Amino acid sequence: MSVLDRGFMFGDGVYEVIPVRGGRPFHLEAHLCRLEESLKATRITSTHSRDEWRTLIIDILAKSEEVNAQIYLQITRGVAPYRSHDVGLMTPTELLMVQPVSTESLDPLTLSVCEDYRWLRGKIKSTSLIAATLLRIQAREQGAMDAVMHRDGVVTECTSSNIFAVFGDSVVTPPADQQILHGITRSEVLQLPGLPVRMVERTLPLEELLTADEVFVTSSNQAVRPVVSIDEHTFNTTGSCTAQIAAAFEALMVMDT
Amino acid sequence: MSVLDRGFMFGDGVYEVIPVRGGRPFHLEAHLCRLEESLKATRITSTHSRDEWRTLIIDILAKSEEVNAQIYLQITRGVAPYRSHDVGLMTPTELLMVQPVSTESLDPLTLSVCEDYRWLRGKIKSTSLIAATLLRIQAREQGAMDAVMHRDGVVTECTSSNIFAVFGDSVVTPPADQQILHGITRSEVLQLPGLPVRMVERTLPLEELLTADEVFVTSSNQAVRPVVSIDEHTFNTTGSCTAQIAAAFEALMVMDT
Repeated sequence: MSVLDRGFMFGDGVYEVIPVRGGRPFHLEAHLCRLEESLKATRITSTHSRDEWRTLIIDILAKSEEVNAQIYLQITRGVAPYRSHDVGLMTPTELLMVQPVSTESLDPLTLSVCEDYRWLRGKIKSTSLIAATLLRIQAREQGAMDAVMHRDGVVTECTSSNIFAVFGDSVVTPPADQQILHGITRSEVLQLPGLPVRMVERTLPLEELLTADEVFVTSSNQAVRPVVSIDEHTFNTTGSCTAQIAAAFEALMVMDT
Repeated sequence: MSVLDRGFMFGDGVYEVIPVRGGRPFHLEAHLCRLEESLKATRITSTHSRDEWRTLIIDILAKSEEVNAQIYLQITRGVAPYRSHDVGLMTPTELLMVQPVSTESLDPLTLSVCEDYRWLRGKIKSTSLIAATLLRIQAREQGAMDAVMHRDGVVTECTSSNIFAVFGDSVVTPPADQQILHGITRSEVLQLPGLPVRMVERTLPLEELLTADEVFVTSSNQAVRPVVSIDEHTFNTTGSCTAQIAAAFEALMVMDT
């Protein structure tokens, strides 16, 4: 790969991570749809249509013979003739690879509160991820596995997952605005049928989050993962609500794949 | 270069662009000092000391035989074993290259106002530059060459330069806080001796900027460059103040190289 690739010099690209279960990509259409939105927002034009990407993904999976894995798809603006802020016409660089599932432990998560200083367009799934990287490092330095972030006291998300808080029979998550990733697992959880809870998308003050009965995060890699603590505040991880939601989501994954 | 380099997948790196005039790097120490600050803030440890970088830069310049050029130096966190948000121990990837001076025209600049939605740590000179890229594209779509950005009505900077506004004999520029790049040209301009103006670092409301007598930007590439318009507001580019500052800065460059 060229060092002049704008993915390398400007973080000028978008990506998707698609879980693979039983040899099949999970929620492929939703991922391809979000990819199209990221491309549109960044004015990058893929050389492949959605149909072509679908075929390429099925093909690479078949060749890899992986059963439980992840598809990683990255599209950058392309290779510039020299390093310049100016964006000329160029052919996108497209990377598609299968990698093993994350070796990250999925034990209950410990979080630490950090100020969210990322850009205000977290909805765009861009590879300019240094802020998320530094915030995760900060959380580690504060003794936790990941950061739960807030802007002016209002909760946004974690560095690579969305966050939910359980209050009695209400399950609250911040609204899918421009600032946070519109997680596909988040969206699926909000629509899970048959659960004895009310799902609510609304502004979640940090102070309120810390008083929740249970807390969990969602992401393609982590599915529904309980949170055991946010700094010195601890949460019930043996409670029934998160476990029920995790089980319902797991059942959906099995059904869909 | 590996696609698994965190510079490519996470924009997880820092950089410097050092102008070369008469075969010599301009303000090399200031650039190396800022690089060290960016490395410290991102917890990346270069394999080279400042002394070694200085020698490497002098050597590459001698070999290149370029007289007017740019040094580009990028350090990423390194190549990860697989794509993961988690940051393990790795050896930084270090890129040092000489490239020709920008072919970008240095005619008076036209700007368009954009909301600054970048991260709040613009002081760190990171390669996660997609926000700057998209804001420049937006400015182009709005008919200008670059964006002048504001947060909640307070001016920050342009996508690759700092901004100054002239009001009578006062020259105002936003303070060097965490949100903007601490430009080396900006800093030099603030300290230019013998000019009949008062340099002021203070909060600059967007509304006030639009009423300035003259406006100019500063950067390593553009030196001191007059601004002819911000959207429909036009500025005097034949006025004496910007021209005097540009001339004084040019004289300093000649003296220092």
